[in-house]
Amino acid sequence: MTQRFVVIGGDAGGMSAAAQARRRSRDASDLEIVAFERSRFTSYSACGLPYFVAGTVDEADDLIARTPTEHAAMGVDVRVGHEVVRIDAAARTVAVQNLAAGAERIEPFDQLLIATGAVPIRPDLPGVNSDGVHGIQNMADGIALRAHLDEHHDDHHRAVVVGGGYVGLEMAESMHQRGLPVTVVDSGEQPMSTLDPEIGARVADAMRALGIDVRMQTRATAFETDTGDHVRAVSTSEGTIDADVVVLGIGVRPNVQLAHDAGIALGPTGAIATDDRMQTSVAGVWAAGDCVEVTHRVTGKKAYVPLGTHANKQGRVVGVNVTGGDAHFRGVVGTAVTKICAYEIGRTGLSEREAKEAGFEVATATIETTTRAAYFPGAQPITVKVVAERPAGRLLGAQVFGREGAAKRVDIAAVAIWAGLAVDEIGQLDLGYAPPFSPLWDPVLVAANQAARELALL
Amino acid sequence: MTQRFVVIGGDAGGMSAAAQARRRSRDASDLEIVAFERSRFTSYSACGLPYFVAGTVDEADDLIARTPTEHAAMGVDVRVGHEVVRIDAAARTVAVQNLAAGAERIEPFDQLLIATGAVPIRPDLPGVNSDGVHGIQNMADGIALRAHLDEHHDDHHRAVVVGGGYVGLEMAESMHQRGLPVTVVDSGEQPMSTLDPEIGARVADAMRALGIDVRMQTRATAFETDTGDHVRAVSTSEGTIDADVVVLGIGVRPNVQLAHDAGIALGPTGAIATDDRMQTSVAGVWAAGDCVEVTHRVTGKKAYVPLGTHANKQGRVVGVNVTGGDAHFRGVVGTAVTKICAYEIGRTGLSEREAKEAGFEVATATIETTTRAAYFPGAQPITVKVVAERPAGRLLGAQVFGREGAAKRVDIAAVAIWAGLAVDEIGQLDLGYAPPFSPLWDPVLVAANQAARELALL
Repeated sequence: MTQRFVVIGGDAGGMSAAAQARRRSRDASDLEIVAFERSRFTSYSACGLPYFVAGTVDEADDLIARTPTEHAAMGVDVRVGHEVVRIDAAARTVAVQNLAAGAERIEPFDQLLIATGAVPIRPDLPGVNSDGVHGIQNMADGIALRAHLDEHHDDHHRAVVVGGGYVGLEMAESMHQRGLPVTVVDSGEQPMSTLDPEIGARVADAMRALGIDVRMQTRATAFETDTGDHVRAVSTSEGTIDADVVVLGIGVRPNVQLAHDAGIALGPTGAIATDDRMQTSVAGVWAAGDCVEVTHRVTGKKAYVPLGTHANKQGRVVGVNVTGGDAHFRGVVGTAVTKICAYEIGRTGLSEREAKEAGFEVATATIETTTRAAYFPGAQPITVKVVAERPAGRLLGAQVFGREGAAKRVDIAAVAIWAGLAVDEIGQLDLGYAPPFSPLWDPVLVAANQAARELALL
Repeated sequence: MTQRFVVIGGDAGGMSAAAQARRRSRDASDLEIVAFERSRFTSYSACGLPYFVAGTVDEADDLIARTPTEHAAMGVDVRVGHEVVRIDAAARTVAVQNLAAGAERIEPFDQLLIATGAVPIRPDLPGVNSDGVHGIQNMADGIALRAHLDEHHDDHHRAVVVGGGYVGLEMAESMHQRGLPVTVVDSGEQPMSTLDPEIGARVADAMRALGIDVRMQTRATAFETDTGDHVRAVSTSEGTIDADVVVLGIGVRPNVQLAHDAGIALGPTGAIATDDRMQTSVAGVWAAGDCVEVTHRVTGKKAYVPLGTHANKQGRVVGVNVTGGDAHFRGVVGTAVTKICAYEIGRTGLSEREAKEAGFEVATATIETTTRAAYFPGAQPITVKVVAERPAGRLLGAQVFGREGAAKRVDIAAVAIWAGLAVDEIGQLDLGYAPPFSPLWDPVLVAANQAARELALL
């Protein structure tokens, strides 16, 4: 008998699951796979949107890994422009609205995947919906913002980015590269709250060195508009900033309404709770991507970490499990990298602040060295901070800041944290060395050794 | 009572030990540290020599991390131009010859470190000592070769490199960058015998694409000279190759004569045997660097892996142990990276061939992807091969070939191998992702996942 696997959401988590299930069950008479996506896009790189807006990536289509037509050719029936509006877990059905036609249909499922993603946080402030105030969560947002910027190319527009996290930083870079004067407004003490203050301060300094106006401890309070309802300024706790275009990069929250309404359990973070096979509290109903919470391997606690990498891995896990396999999502360690122009930033595990909040006694070490042998052309400064648990030295976290060759160094620490290695052992890791690639002691090893000395382990 | 720590050899292993011991025992009345070095150089980057010869690095001095004077200022008495010619382990003395004066002195020690390094293999062929045939093992070699090339800058010299290993490759790049026509001669089937054939073939193709004449399965048989005893051609098993300058990059063997003559045990590889505290068969006599053998963590067997990174780590271990500490060298996984012009090469663990020779049943996967998101400018092709143990999938080795951003990817695999992770778990590692740095699935993850599928683990 044909089983029916229904997927809600046509992006990373949903379509990874669909593709994996299709690979494992090639015969559509065994498994029918239907995915509902309310937009007209599937499987695109949301992480690439800032680079599309900047013009670094030419076409929106470049960001699309697989179109609905390509999915169909693989044997996955994707229905774009269709929004699932209700799940009936007991009846094993979903109600689907055809957004163009308005009609609602009941669709049955044997297995269901909720991959509804995240919704951007929009501050409830006067003028937030006026013309020129842009979110940057999905493809349509990116296309709208780039069209706006292209249209006003010669108008000497001034940009304000609200929020100094990853997306805020990348959008600041994007605008800066387009030649707009950019101001970043954030209520925190430093950009990128997942970094410790001394590393965040380096990011702020770098942004200012690029000519970006970074205003920390500054809270947006309203968006002022002209008579045409076009934004003209951002009112803040520290005064008014002229603005012709505003980008909101305040963060996202899990899109859980559908699941919650269906009686599916949410976890302590407010995202959908799953076991490590990505099954929700309802048997045969799975969840993946930016709508779920994950286990942080360092704390052992639940965390909300919406990232495309996790979504894809979770989707594959679901694809295996709905086709009779037994795959497990093994959690995250909180790795992230980004750049702003020539400056690279990476972090993994817990920051010092996060580690202390989680109850760890810590030792830290912050070192400065170079990305290549100091004498080799192109060697760039790099700062590495590591956070280790007292007294045994288990690595809890690492942060890197530098230029070319800096960010991906965090992978070394990410694998070491994943495997539970301590800093004295990390200091001896057999990493690749040649003068064009690294100093003899890789920066991560230097930091680990310093932390080990701090802990009297060396 | 003052203890006396004598170090034989003033480079990586020896001076790391001396510096570490000095840091831990700041008072020279507790510990006197004397190092004997037969050349006039200490603590230099032998790995940087190809780049000095190329002119990428301006001055030989740039390669020197710490001069004898700087060591002295740190409280380490370095005597350059002094060669230790005998060790009397029972009497706790060494005989030292002052190479300039010719005088021999007996010097006592409480603790002794043998850090005599390696000697380059020079083929016993006619003409090998003629003018224009250069080794590239030490600083003097590098200075001589660069002086030769500078002197003959306008003479349209043709270069032949004998040996297609790491040093041979780097010297081929060096000559090529100086504008010389370069031929590489090697008796093997591919350059870089530590790579599997299909990856080695990519290296050979890349070299040929650069215009380097790569002649594999070709054995040098003699060096022909002109009447002035200057090399003019290399005779090989496959014919004669004109040459005005020849570089020997055939490899090295451990420099163990002193130790062997003193009755200190050698290991199965022919290098000095030590325990993991780097102590030899004689109590209080230690060894570190290119003269010792190490434990390969994948096979558990002894291996000879002469690399500056290991030498420095071993030296630090000795420096801790001679000052009352208890440090252990934890072995190697065989990581190495290099480049030839824009092409990058990395390897770690065992190649497929090595794994089979070591008795492992293996599964392999070789994948092609890009270093950045495929749509991001500057994305470069990268090939990753992984070798995993059947049936459980423990990662045994990885090889990478590509362009900018490829080589250091091998570090991810190196840490995973170090920690004993299996490919199905590696496929889920939480690595840094952003479009400028990586495709959503890092190339190492793609290869690991493919191997896991091969093993039916996914």
